[in-house]
Amino acid sequence: MTEDILDQFAAIVGAQYTIRDENDLAPYLKEPRGLYNENSPMVLKPGSTEEVSEILSLATKTGTPIVPQAGNTGHVGGQVPLVDGPHGQIILSMSRLNRVRETDAAGNTMTVEAGCVLETIHQAAADINRMFPLTLGSQGSCEIGGNLSTNAGGTAVLAYGNTRQLCLGLEVVLPTGEIWNGLRRLKKDNTGYDLRDLFIGAEGTLGVITAAVIKLHPIPAGNQVAIAGLESVNDALSVFRMAQEACGGALTGFELMQGIAMEFSTRNIPGNRKPLANDYDWYILIDISSSQSEDDADRMMQTIMEGAFEKGLIKDAVLAQSEAQRTAFWQLRETMSAAQKPEGASIKQDVSVPIAAIPEFMAQADRAVLNAMPDARICAFGHMGDGNIHYNISQPVGGESDAHMARRHEISDLVYAVATQMGGSISAEHGIGQMKRDRLAAIRQPIEIDLMRRIKTAFDPANIMNPGKVIDLQG
Amino acid sequence: MTEDILDQFAAIVGAQYTIRDENDLAPYLKEPRGLYNENSPMVLKPGSTEEVSEILSLATKTGTPIVPQAGNTGHVGGQVPLVDGPHGQIILSMSRLNRVRETDAAGNTMTVEAGCVLETIHQAAADINRMFPLTLGSQGSCEIGGNLSTNAGGTAVLAYGNTRQLCLGLEVVLPTGEIWNGLRRLKKDNTGYDLRDLFIGAEGTLGVITAAVIKLHPIPAGNQVAIAGLESVNDALSVFRMAQEACGGALTGFELMQGIAMEFSTRNIPGNRKPLANDYDWYILIDISSSQSEDDADRMMQTIMEGAFEKGLIKDAVLAQSEAQRTAFWQLRETMSAAQKPEGASIKQDVSVPIAAIPEFMAQADRAVLNAMPDARICAFGHMGDGNIHYNISQPVGGESDAHMARRHEISDLVYAVATQMGGSISAEHGIGQMKRDRLAAIRQPIEIDLMRRIKTAFDPANIMNPGKVIDLQG
Repeated sequence: MTEDILDQFAAIVGAQYTIRDENDLAPYLKEPRGLYNENSPMVLKPGSTEEVSEILSLATKTGTPIVPQAGNTGHVGGQVPLVDGPHGQIILSMSRLNRVRETDAAGNTMTVEAGCVLETIHQAAADINRMFPLTLGSQGSCEIGGNLSTNAGGTAVLAYGNTRQLCLGLEVVLPTGEIWNGLRRLKKDNTGYDLRDLFIGAEGTLGVITAAVIKLHPIPAGNQVAIAGLESVNDALSVFRMAQEACGGALTGFELMQGIAMEFSTRNIPGNRKPLANDYDWYILIDISSSQSEDDADRMMQTIMEGAFEKGLIKDAVLAQSEAQRTAFWQLRETMSAAQKPEGASIKQDVSVPIAAIPEFMAQADRAVLNAMPDARICAFGHMGDGNIHYNISQPVGGESDAHMARRHEISDLVYAVATQMGGSISAEHGIGQMKRDRLAAIRQPIEIDLMRRIKTAFDPANIMNPGKVIDLQG
Repeated sequence: MTEDILDQFAAIVGAQYTIRDENDLAPYLKEPRGLYNENSPMVLKPGSTEEVSEILSLATKTGTPIVPQAGNTGHVGGQVPLVDGPHGQIILSMSRLNRVRETDAAGNTMTVEAGCVLETIHQAAADINRMFPLTLGSQGSCEIGGNLSTNAGGTAVLAYGNTRQLCLGLEVVLPTGEIWNGLRRLKKDNTGYDLRDLFIGAEGTLGVITAAVIKLHPIPAGNQVAIAGLESVNDALSVFRMAQEACGGALTGFELMQGIAMEFSTRNIPGNRKPLANDYDWYILIDISSSQSEDDADRMMQTIMEGAFEKGLIKDAVLAQSEAQRTAFWQLRETMSAAQKPEGASIKQDVSVPIAAIPEFMAQADRAVLNAMPDARICAFGHMGDGNIHYNISQPVGGESDAHMARRHEISDLVYAVATQMGGSISAEHGIGQMKRDRLAAIRQPIEIDLMRRIKTAFDPANIMNPGKVIDLQG
């Protein structure tokens, strides 16, 4: 890569939106888990779809690798340069493309640019008395372009679906610089191949999502949240089924938390308090929304809790008495990842299995991990209603962080093997990025990887879009 | 195509499952609307995924075009040979692949083969106290492989989504004969490109879907159906918004019907009776499901109806008093397509627009059509909650069927132009097939059609899978 080419890129966005200084580049290179350290000659911050188009067009002409980056909150190294990847990977920051282009309360849609922060979108929806349900721990900094590119999940998937289900249309810049205007606002549109869902979850390897039409929902009239203590995952599964039958689509959250996760959360996060008088091996958080009233949500919750208590499935429970308490209950769950940090290093897996298999998954994964690392502190929590468990393993008390993390591939493989054998996924909601690329290729049928390679080659023959992420063309 | 090659194909499935006699071939060549008359040398009826694999492998080797066919209920000629298409198009009937492979009530999934009739699937779900929500007029004969290949819609999309949203995993035979086992049962799985959604809606042009994991839902505890008479589409839209805010996910149907459609339905279908004492320009059918109780569904319906009546949005309404009456109300709507037949030929359009644009779409489309054909009988009905209108035009009273249908392209283009200009779709739920292929290419950005061509070429380089449907590689 010559200086001349870099100057041509810089000229597209202008000097004030080009970053070349090493110190200024650092925040774009450092990702949340600190696992991928690679250089980049430049960050470009385009201010329009047209500038993105010019950048990609030049990238294809010059064979320059481009790494799209939104809020830089991804967990699998998809948004930072590939370690030992091609020379001169330029980071394309989407953060300046942050306009809400259009809101349509009547049609329940909003058109947003890729760099809009998720919380900003929540606010824009609230301003027109609507709700955008996508809810993540990182919502204060993640951006919708990244959510779309990874098909982000979060805590509201049970009732509202993944990001894919919340998107109606896309605007995408292709590697050649051509702009696909697929900003449709239709619930039904059977007109050829599903390009939208191909770009969603492609992690920026097929093109750059620059804008999207997202689906809004009415704000529920009432909401209730409860936390209960349980003895086993099996009991939690039984309560989940009761809740699902009793509430249908009104069941808007069902989270499972291991006792130690609750312990970390209340010990390490200021303001978090123990929800119940005693400690339990397992906790569940149930969230119910009613389109009718607070009372209706409350009634449904009471019914479930009383039924579960009578059957001996839950040992104790508490229903939130106020909006503040509802928030506090969710806070216990949402800070669990942060609460693990003061406990040292954590080997993290984001797996999913068929819902009915969760108890068996937990039992087998525990056996495999504790056999290999007897004093590991398994700290699992996740979205039970989606079959999605964040199966995290904190370092042993008094152990060394580096020694713990040195075993992460070995330990992860044990967990992945259990999940895979049950028909599960090695990445439920975080994506593949650079972290899980080779594992994916090892686990899946060769024909599946081959089909992905064919798509990649058909869309990006010069292989400039986030090269080496998701699939390896050379592999 | 030599006799020898045909014999090789026949040998794969055996003589008793090979049809070569002209009379026996006829039912596979004749589609519901009688629009496409083309020949085929042979129908093959494989009994296993492996036989499908052998057939496609031989087809790729010999360059033989294959037309997959499920229940043969499609409206756009996708499931019958392409008129003036390549020589010797063999029909691959999926109807013998009709096993329910697995039911999982706990996990709310079912694994079904492509040739399962939709109604059989409904029954298998009911047998384990679950529901498969996909509901179509043709459910007694359409097969799930066709539903998946066209991403079929129907009357339950509002709450449960299109077929795409009801499918978790697929088994697909590729043109080479390779079998992709993507029969996953996961709600969350972010592991690479979304192959599943690419095959769904591809109308058999990328491979043959042989089996699928479909999502089941709990059977609602209560249900209520009402029909109301209104003066305008605008009023219907207002009632829709009230119902959506009042019921959220409990609103399981919202159908719009023009007065003439109700007139045809009650006049031409034995057993159908006028739902209200007087006649109205417009009718709506509202369906509400409650996870709690019959009373709850009834209460929600009462609230909506009273509110709409007070605001003068509806002029009269009737709530079903029994399960039989609920069925009878739905029957009025579901037989509307059949009820048009005795009125002569009909030019049919299956369009969608953003929901808020429906009144304006109706006004503009009516103006355009009546300007071109002053005595046309516009008979529109459809899924208001999805923005999907079946905008049908019955021949003038006393007119000639042939003369009416001779103008179908001209008239359809008028309607498509109105829908397209509003950001709508020319095929909301029926797909593209051979009917709308060239129109799609004319309406969409060249880059969109080009991306579809690249996918087709990447998956089916020999162009043997349903060639000439959806996109034209030569075009």
